[in-house]
Amino acid sequence: MRRHRNGEVLDSENDNPPSGDGSDVILGLDGGTTSTVCVCMAMPPSSRGGVPDPLPVLARAVSGCSNHNSVGESAARETLEQVMAEALLKSGSNRSSVRAVCLAVSGVNHPTDQQRILAWLKEMFPSHVKLFVQNDAVAALASGTLGKLHGCVLIAGTGTIAYGFTEDGREARAAGAGPVLGDWGSGYGIAAQALTAVVRAYDGRGPQTMLTQSILQSLHLFSADELIGWTYADPSWARIAALVSVVVSCAEAGDQVANKILQDSVQELAVSVKAVVQRLNLSGEDGKGCFPLVMVGGVLEANKRWDIGKEVVNFVLKDYPGAHPIRPKVEPAVGAALLAWNFYLRESEK
Amino acid sequence: MRRHRNGEVLDSENDNPPSGDGSDVILGLDGGTTSTVCVCMAMPPSSRGGVPDPLPVLARAVSGCSNHNSVGESAARETLEQVMAEALLKSGSNRSSVRAVCLAVSGVNHPTDQQRILAWLKEMFPSHVKLFVQNDAVAALASGTLGKLHGCVLIAGTGTIAYGFTEDGREARAAGAGPVLGDWGSGYGIAAQALTAVVRAYDGRGPQTMLTQSILQSLHLFSADELIGWTYADPSWARIAALVSVVVSCAEAGDQVANKILQDSVQELAVSVKAVVQRLNLSGEDGKGCFPLVMVGGVLEANKRWDIGKEVVNFVLKDYPGAHPIRPKVEPAVGAALLAWNFYLRESEK
Repeated sequence: MRRHRNGEVLDSENDNPPSGDGSDVILGLDGGTTSTVCVCMAMPPSSRGGVPDPLPVLARAVSGCSNHNSVGESAARETLEQVMAEALLKSGSNRSSVRAVCLAVSGVNHPTDQQRILAWLKEMFPSHVKLFVQNDAVAALASGTLGKLHGCVLIAGTGTIAYGFTEDGREARAAGAGPVLGDWGSGYGIAAQALTAVVRAYDGRGPQTMLTQSILQSLHLFSADELIGWTYADPSWARIAALVSVVVSCAEAGDQVANKILQDSVQELAVSVKAVVQRLNLSGEDGKGCFPLVMVGGVLEANKRWDIGKEVVNFVLKDYPGAHPIRPKVEPAVGAALLAWNFYLRESEK
Repeated sequence: MRRHRNGEVLDSENDNPPSGDGSDVILGLDGGTTSTVCVCMAMPPSSRGGVPDPLPVLARAVSGCSNHNSVGESAARETLEQVMAEALLKSGSNRSSVRAVCLAVSGVNHPTDQQRILAWLKEMFPSHVKLFVQNDAVAALASGTLGKLHGCVLIAGTGTIAYGFTEDGREARAAGAGPVLGDWGSGYGIAAQALTAVVRAYDGRGPQTMLTQSILQSLHLFSADELIGWTYADPSWARIAALVSVVVSCAEAGDQVANKILQDSVQELAVSVKAVVQRLNLSGEDGKGCFPLVMVGGVLEANKRWDIGKEVVNFVLKDYPGAHPIRPKVEPAVGAALLAWNFYLRESEK
């Protein structure tokens, strides 16, 4: 018998792989900077016929942040356990039905991160359950490719990262290092530059801009010098990144400062994608090979006249005409579940 | 009788201004982002003969951060009360000998900040004591001009700010808004850009640089991807700004990336000074008028071959040949005490 650290008793029979039946499930988790989503999917009977349509998603649960860098290790573990328990409960399954888990979580930047998180998961599940830990960008890629690890994903929400895989399993990433380390193409980066432009206009270091009135209005402030207190009061990235829509509106209204900030952001995001494509040689010898380019995140999904995502794709296509842009129709947690399925099949074949 | 909120009883006689005698003292406080310094100075008998030489500094005390934005209001008050009590004790004086207090503290960015902090001070002292609250940059200016509020000060340590006064009392500032709002010339700004350059070189977005080996070595890390965890572990500005000396060394050794970061920083710092000088018209109608340019802070004090402070001065002199650079010989807290003295004399003359 194996006792879970929270006191839950797992039956000793769970240490032996149960015979496969209709109740087998897989869990896919997407742990971002603000929330953690867990999807419980019925295990498709085999890989023949490809990805089942519709996808057999049984349940979905949402919880808070599970990035161990942000909330600490014990809070991150707690969140993960809770969201998995809830998804299993909602699906009418339990821990003993789980065959594979893919946890894709932000804050996995180094093999030691991966090992540590894998060690937590091993404490939560019997030994026959297949466990996989990835950076959350990998789940986002899989949400666009429906589980295939090939191509490049660009995420630009509050933060940004580009992540890619070759068909033979090599991987590379660019950016995704946070604002201190210069992720200037992200929503946070765009908004922080807009705030900076307002301060510079106010104190005489930069040109006047429409951003001043628009941002002060949206924050219910009267003067640019109040922005200092506003940022100190709560410097959380998401709160600042929420100003991106104001920047887009100003750029659409013809403001040159806002327009320049968005153009720089497009450059930065395109450079991240190109760095990954180049290092992995995704476009092949002639530079024209096809590969999926999955585009994810609020900054890229804007459906306005000034469309950051479209501009980034255009920049990438100039150098890599074989890039095939995909806007995923399923969420990253489903991508993680499909990854778990693929990993499971591959390991079972061995 | 007036009871202090901490329970200390102030004699009722203190509510009446005592006759001036040799024991009268003034307090100057410099509250920066990392520490608070309080200087207790004997009140010079009159302003005739100018600033006394040597300065009659009786005692000095040091405490932690008193920026209410950083540590919160009650901790900031506590720190201020404690450091003043210690300086008075060391000088053999007490609260009843105090004639004037100038508190120059970072985080005073708006008249409401000034009013709030003034209200705290009023609770601590009898009503006849003259109380003045300023941004800490003002004390730094006064440390270079020995109490005269005229000219421009540039501070570049962990953070950066330019602050200026005309002889008739108009004032202006530039920068000083923190990293979110783009103080790129600061020690933090220089170091964050260097860290960014290392990450960009690592993931293929930027050129290789000597900064990689030098920074990893100084932080005892093995790989650039460990920098993400390092910055998350403690993103305090001073810890990051401490890397400036590494950037200077790399620039001196011929690294182009490091050199560019320092050149950009010089530009940024010079632009802050110029914005203040221009708005206050410190150089007069012909642009050649003389004004003090006080230079303060670790980034400007480097005495290496690559001298950031010297480069900034050269940039400013190109546009404003009347700028007279001063490296203060006394600390900002002494500047604050001299300001308190000047304010006291001016108010007494009224």
